[in-house]
Amino acid sequence: MIKKLQTPIIIINFKTYLEATGKRAVELARKAEKISLGLGVSVGLAPQFTDIASVAKAVSIPVLAQHVDSIQPGSHTGYILVDAVKKAGAIGTLINHSERQLKLPEIDAVIRITRKKSLVSVVCTSNPKIGAAVASLMPDVIAIEPPQLIGTGIPVSKAQPEVITNTIDLVRRINEKVVLLCGAGISSGEDVMAALRLGAQGVLVASGIVKARDPSRVLREFAESTKI
Amino acid sequence: MIKKLQTPIIIINFKTYLEATGKRAVELARKAEKISLGLGVSVGLAPQFTDIASVAKAVSIPVLAQHVDSIQPGSHTGYILVDAVKKAGAIGTLINHSERQLKLPEIDAVIRITRKKSLVSVVCTSNPKIGAAVASLMPDVIAIEPPQLIGTGIPVSKAQPEVITNTIDLVRRINEKVVLLCGAGISSGEDVMAALRLGAQGVLVASGIVKARDPSRVLREFAESTKI
Amino acid sequence: MIKKLQTPIIIINFKTYLEATGKRAVELARKAEKISLGLGVSVGLAPQFTDIASVAKAVSIPVLAQHVDSIQPGSHTGYILVDAVKKAGAIGTLINHSERQLKLPEIDAVIRITRKKSLVSVVCTSNPKIGAAVASLMPDVIAIEPPQLIGTGIPVSKAQPEVITNTIDLVRRINEKVVLLCGAGISSGEDVMAALRLGAQGVLVASGIVKARDPSRVLREFAESTKI
Amino acid sequence: MIKKLQTPIIIINFKTYLEATGKRAVELARKAEKISLGLGVSVGLAPQFTDIASVAKAVSIPVLAQHVDSIQPGSHTGYILVDAVKKAGAIGTLINHSERQLKLPEIDAVIRITRKKSLVSVVCTSNPKIGAAVASLMPDVIAIEPPQLIGTGIPVSKAQPEVITNTIDLVRRINEKVVLLCGAGISSGEDVMAALRLGAQGVLVASGIVKARDPSRVLREFAESTKI
Repeated sequence: MIKKLQTPIIIINFKTYLEATGKRAVELARKAEKISLGLGVSVGLAPQFTDIASVAKAVSIPVLAQHVDSIQPGSHTGYILVDAVKKAGAIGTLINHSERQLKLPEIDAVIRITRKKSLVSVVCTSNPKIGAAVASLMPDVIAIEPPQLIGTGIPVSKAQPEVITNTIDLVRRINEKVVLLCGAGISSGEDVMAALRLGAQGVLVASGIVKARDPSRVLREFAESTKI
Repeated sequence: MIKKLQTPIIIINFKTYLEATGKRAVELARKAEKISLGLGVSVGLAPQFTDIASVAKAVSIPVLAQHVDSIQPGSHTGYILVDAVKKAGAIGTLINHSERQLKLPEIDAVIRITRKKSLVSVVCTSNPKIGAAVASLMPDVIAIEPPQLIGTGIPVSKAQPEVITNTIDLVRRINEKVVLLCGAGISSGEDVMAALRLGAQGVLVASGIVKARDPSRVLREFAESTKI
Repeated sequence: MIKKLQTPIIIINFKTYLEATGKRAVELARKAEKISLGLGVSVGLAPQFTDIASVAKAVSIPVLAQHVDSIQPGSHTGYILVDAVKKAGAIGTLINHSERQLKLPEIDAVIRITRKKSLVSVVCTSNPKIGAAVASLMPDVIAIEPPQLIGTGIPVSKAQPEVITNTIDLVRRINEKVVLLCGAGISSGEDVMAALRLGAQGVLVASGIVKARDPSRVLREFAESTKI
Repeated sequence: MIKKLQTPIIIINFKTYLEATGKRAVELARKAEKISLGLGVSVGLAPQFTDIASVAKAVSIPVLAQHVDSIQPGSHTGYILVDAVKKAGAIGTLINHSERQLKLPEIDAVIRITRKKSLVSVVCTSNPKIGAAVASLMPDVIAIEPPQLIGTGIPVSKAQPEVITNTIDLVRRINEKVVLLCGAGISSGEDVMAALRLGAQGVLVASGIVKARDPSRVLREFAESTKI
């Protein structure tokens, strides 16, 4: 059972796509597990909160939340408690996705809470300076995703390679251990290879796989590309 | 199987209490189901998003979400999709709880989405004018909870009975069908009776049951009080 | 000196247009004052916070804030205090503009604060149900502006006349005194006339005047149309 | 005329205190100017938006906004445009005060906008890691204020000196030029001296001066302490 994230890694963000909601979230997770175990490539899954438990029960690969709130247990109706996503089976969480940005002190607070609860923190950033800023907060993983490319099919690794390399440069001066991923527009194995060649240790992908006619085929291509 | 809300009703808000997270959410739900079915009194449960599916699978009484976002399926990482809570087994949702207030146009949008998806909308309000305002938006249920009494153990039905009666008066001029609940500080059967005598059709309760030493005993007392 | 709002009224929202910032805010205000006093038609001005004092000093027609926060005096760095906009010379404020939506309890709180401080509350709404909801909160003025028409030049009074008449119908059942304005896309005297004929008591306009090649000419046309 | 910030500096945050609103803002500003010019010590003033123009006109010392929004000129009713505060006479702005926190990408965006418009950016932070994070975004000034001490009269320079020194250590590894201030609880000349001795280049103060029985006396004490 691979419940830890290992690099190179492919994290699939299920967003709130109907193609990855409820039973279809579990089906997609099973496809991803098959490829991950078959090829020995680390794949992480970030389904909606309501699907974390069923996905985590169905598969042996790592499951992440898409967001958690900087709250403690108590009177917080409608918020996302770290303990709740952990008990549901998540081993980590995305933080500050460009579609769910947090206030700076909240990012700091959530990283502290996840560390205390032994969950992996994957903080999303949108440019090199913001990547460097987040590096000082000592998360486990930083994902760089230029928001203007998200969902476009235009891969950051080709359209803006300097965003990746500049982020890596700035981040590494501050934080040598943090794992660096990149995302936005990744839609082919070639894009994945380009990302890894630039120094990324994995990719964060959403529509490229979730909305693909054949998600298994695309994920297999991605996974194989990490091994070249 | 009672999957519909029937009045008088007791809705238990699990908030983000550890006492009602994960397995403990399911345990509490089972206790509530036993009392609901045993006494023939309608009880609704509002667990955290991550626990909706397991609670809805474990029990036959109605499950609600604590909140949903005014979004459509798509690129909304970290948000709560109505379709997702419905597929997980929720038959409705709390909206605009005083701990999770929404912008006015969002309340309108969420009520419309829930109606379209055949989910029950339970909108929380904090004073009679706000109750009347919400009545114009045509939700299924309005819960009146003066926020300063929430979690105090000082029952609204005793401390501020005029808040309940004034809300009912104002709401009924606008909307004759909406179900009216009250909450905040409800902690004994006597409080429940007082609420019903004032015209409320049920109660919304959280710590009074979830944090009770013996939740079953308290819920049983509440449930019996609705039958007197 | 006309410091009160009288119907029919034209309220000009300066937004954050450069054409209506700093000295240019004062210039636009002087043009509006000239037409208002010349034709005897009530015109209100809603400049940016930083320009309220200089505009209110320069002209004798009513000045409104574009927004205020639901705060009391104290430790609220960066927020908008009702007392501050009043001391600067505002006689009222827009509330819940579609570009600056508020939580429902905030709208209620701001209406209460403005009433206590004798400021005029102009609450913006986007559809008939939301208009009716706001009517229960007892503001002085409700402006109905379908957000999808704002800034388009397609006048609500022509494109969606039923939005205006339905709002008036629903609002009047709840609140007989509130003044009703409409806005969005108003760009000619004909649009103003259409709005008044539908039952509106004035209009809320922004780009139609602020961004016009000759704001005086357009405002004069608007003002004359209110007298026909 | 001292329109630039020079270190050591004392920045007075007027917050939304009635003691520093409207005419009283101008009076306080005049007192501050007298001491600043008399002693040759740099003092900056951060009044409410509505008072920026009148304060900037009344005094020759630097005026800052308390906040600006990450917007461009246009349709942003109720928001704070950088151009507007600049035209009103501000030479800079506070950003991300603990009472007005911003999302991380907004902090980055506002710093970029202020730089482009030649305004001074003063970013508030609440602990050393957040200070280091902000250092990567290249603002002109970083102020460190542990929020739990704000308004207490317990000076950060005495109660948590390590917060100041740790912040300076972490920030200087990343950014050698940024000016470092500290705040929270500063209420005597001794506190100011302690702050400077720890390495701070000035202080950010609010209630300690604004709410003092004799603001001139306290500010004079602060100013003299910077010269020892």
